Amino acid sequence: MSQPVDSAVSAVRTYVEQHRATFLDDLAEWLRIPSVSARPDHAADVRRSADWLAAALTATGFPTTEIWTTPGAPAVYAEWPSPDPGAPTVLVYGHHDVQPAAREDGWHSEPFEPVVRDNRMYARGAADDKGQVFFHTLGVRAHLATTGRTAPAVHLKLLIEGEEESGSPHFRDLVERHADRLAADVVIVSDTGMWSEDTPTVCTGMRGLAECEIRLHGPDQDIHSGSFGGAVPNPATAVARLVAALHDEHARVAIPGFYDDVVELTDRERELFAELPFDEREWLRAASSHATGGEAGYSTLERVWARPTAEVNGIGGGYQGPGSKTIIPSSAMVKLSFRLVAGQDPGRIEKAVRDWVAGQIPDGIRCEIAFSPATRPCLTPLDHPALESVARAMGRAFGTPVRFTREGGSGPAADLQDVLGAPVLFLGISVPSDGWHAPDEKVELDLLLKGAEASAHLWNDLAEHWRHVP
Amino acid sequence: MSQPVDSAVSAVRTYVEQHRATFLDDLAEWLRIPSVSARPDHAADVRRSADWLAAALTATGFPTTEIWTTPGAPAVYAEWPSPDPGAPTVLVYGHHDVQPAAREDGWHSEPFEPVVRDNRMYARGAADDKGQVFFHTLGVRAHLATTGRTAPAVHLKLLIEGEEESGSPHFRDLVERHADRLAADVVIVSDTGMWSEDTPTVCTGMRGLAECEIRLHGPDQDIHSGSFGGAVPNPATAVARLVAALHDEHARVAIPGFYDDVVELTDRERELFAELPFDEREWLRAASSHATGGEAGYSTLERVWARPTAEVNGIGGGYQGPGSKTIIPSSAMVKLSFRLVAGQDPGRIEKAVRDWVAGQIPDGIRCEIAFSPATRPCLTPLDHPALESVARAMGRAFGTPVRFTREGGSGPAADLQDVLGAPVLFLGISVPSDGWHAPDEKVELDLLLKGAEASAHLWNDLAEHWRHVP
Repeated sequence: MSQPVDSAVSAVRTYVEQHRATFLDDLAEWLRIPSVSARPDHAADVRRSADWLAAALTATGFPTTEIWTTPGAPAVYAEWPSPDPGAPTVLVYGHHDVQPAAREDGWHSEPFEPVVRDNRMYARGAADDKGQVFFHTLGVRAHLATTGRTAPAVHLKLLIEGEEESGSPHFRDLVERHADRLAADVVIVSDTGMWSEDTPTVCTGMRGLAECEIRLHGPDQDIHSGSFGGAVPNPATAVARLVAALHDEHARVAIPGFYDDVVELTDRERELFAELPFDEREWLRAASSHATGGEAGYSTLERVWARPTAEVNGIGGGYQGPGSKTIIPSSAMVKLSFRLVAGQDPGRIEKAVRDWVAGQIPDGIRCEIAFSPATRPCLTPLDHPALESVARAMGRAFGTPVRFTREGGSGPAADLQDVLGAPVLFLGISVPSDGWHAPDEKVELDLLLKGAEASAHLWNDLAEHWRHVP
Repeated sequence: MSQPVDSAVSAVRTYVEQHRATFLDDLAEWLRIPSVSARPDHAADVRRSADWLAAALTATGFPTTEIWTTPGAPAVYAEWPSPDPGAPTVLVYGHHDVQPAAREDGWHSEPFEPVVRDNRMYARGAADDKGQVFFHTLGVRAHLATTGRTAPAVHLKLLIEGEEESGSPHFRDLVERHADRLAADVVIVSDTGMWSEDTPTVCTGMRGLAECEIRLHGPDQDIHSGSFGGAVPNPATAVARLVAALHDEHARVAIPGFYDDVVELTDRERELFAELPFDEREWLRAASSHATGGEAGYSTLERVWARPTAEVNGIGGGYQGPGSKTIIPSSAMVKLSFRLVAGQDPGRIEKAVRDWVAGQIPDGIRCEIAFSPATRPCLTPLDHPALESVARAMGRAFGTPVRFTREGGSGPAADLQDVLGAPVLFLGISVPSDGWHAPDEKVELDLLLKGAEASAHLWNDLAEHWRHVP
């Protein structure tokens, strides 16, 4: 069943190239479905996206394909057993929902009408995460075609959820409910990126995420800033002061207890980060930003990969239209998100935030605070043996050894680790310039196909090097 | 020409009562025109409002009625000379434009469909300022009818502008252009309020107003708060810090130079303020607010009447819709308004704000700041003789001596004082609960008719006590 590496590499590559056009047409069809899970008015689209994927997985050859409903958006589950009962079981995780997007946010083409320009496909979800889910369908077909198999070398399972972009509120329940079906030796998460086109990497962990909306209420209605200004508390001012107090002068989060459980970076990890070919100007370009800045004592990579944050995602209150309106607004709100790192517990962070906010509210202002369901941080030990399979599969696809990174974003991978007791590994081909959550999100088509190649190699490698241990 | 006071009072009252119904029907018709000057999409409505008023003034008997165009919204001018060449010339000032209003802001009825409930008329502009402009039409007719005149005892001029609610950007130009036509011995501003239904008062000054919108630009587009959060400046955080830095720990405006030219309250003025029957709970109810608070060392009345302020009228940036969106926003903005008091020059304040803001912007954030045309503060000396005529006219309408207040709001009265060299006096019947700029703005119908009575008495009193001094 094992082939010489070079011939396997070129066989997989040839297969993937031959099926490139159909694969991209199918992906574009999926991307046309605006499966925005954060918007209740798109609920039907998220369901349509799940149905589309289930049909595509059936067409790929998965003998079992199911829609798993939740109180929110549905997930898609598929499995394809190996004929070898002792083969390891691999669970692939991804998501089929996407971030909100509108042409007027600054897109150069319709976000839900994919276009290919310069060998890139532009669409909301092209990289995050439909593209990276979909390369596995081409990967498994390449694996079968190039090895002459009719079923994969591993017991293959896919769980593609529909609420990742709204904080996966029902994901842990779903995983707990279906823990028997989902049982796996290893989890492969395809919802991360790599360093760059030239430096393929494997991610070893993601940050967690706690999100809240804080609304401060002042006057019962908007009131005249001339008649009353200067003599009553203004909720827009209060919300601004709250945000200003979030960080201290070292740009550290000023909420008491926020850093209590943080697992600090080891010297070895800081060395690995420092060895990466980091170019601040390039990074800033990918960030569309004009300066770096953040917690004192840490590099940019350390800040985004291994340090917790508090960021304002939205702020609003009073009159925002054209012209002016001389009011003291009745209320103002801020949406905050906290990225969490290994060791931090979302429940403890929520309590710390609530306690801190309660102490910041001035007389005459009433505070409402609501947390969305949180996502735990997650970290794969650098010395885990299964990481070698992923690194080799990526290395074969890219023709070069891979390096190791972390990911600043968040995913529900930690719930899979918790519930299933399986190590979580990351296989992703997105690059920082892909513009996740931003206008003009895109995926590099060459990398997308490398992802399919890596997927094809991975199932063989895991079957050879990783046996099911009951 | 002079009558015994008691008989004049009852004759005016009877006339006003008899014409109450028609007067209110006409006012309601005017209030149905949504003359929102701050909204470009309402420009035609503002013009329609001017035309309506001009026709109403012609119907009232003004021999000359004109629409005065500006580069923005038009003003209405009318004049009605006295047969007595030596009579004083009085210029009445008001405005026919209104604040924005929408049912969903919390109105209990359509803001531009007046309804009468509990002897109050609810509509945007009912008190600010259409109701207070319109009572003069009934006032002058009562004056003529009860004195048997065919023309007023004074040379009466009206200037009703159409841009007061957007900061009167073209008003000073307009006044300068028409200074000859507008020449007057005294200016009567009907765009203020009085203490309460039971305590009629005459206002002696208004605060000025400087307004700006500050927009801070960070990333060139919204970016992913996971991939980049913690390592680049966030413009929403920066705008919040700017707002938080606006005031010091004593709630004083922290902009260097802001208080340099402030004319401080005299002991006598503080005494007059302190003698008013101020009930903090009632005031808070009128303010729809739940606590007082402001500059240390000053009472609530001093804070709103005689101290300058910095207030947030609107703040916004990033994602404000339902659910969450894990972004660092590309930009954020704040609309600030500064109320100014006697002595403060809007131009110097604008410079102080610009200098201060420039020093607050962090690396990687670009700042845009735009000021709207400002309104100067204005103050009538307490010992001015023409104040006596206004106080007497109000006293006759209300049957009780009046007291003196100031007004926290702003109007372009100071420009009239500057350009025409005439003292500015205030005649207004609105009360604090009228909800200027707020949902459910209303006017008390009994007070509105007292305004008409005061207007009727004032022309006689001024003609008797105030001669034209060439």
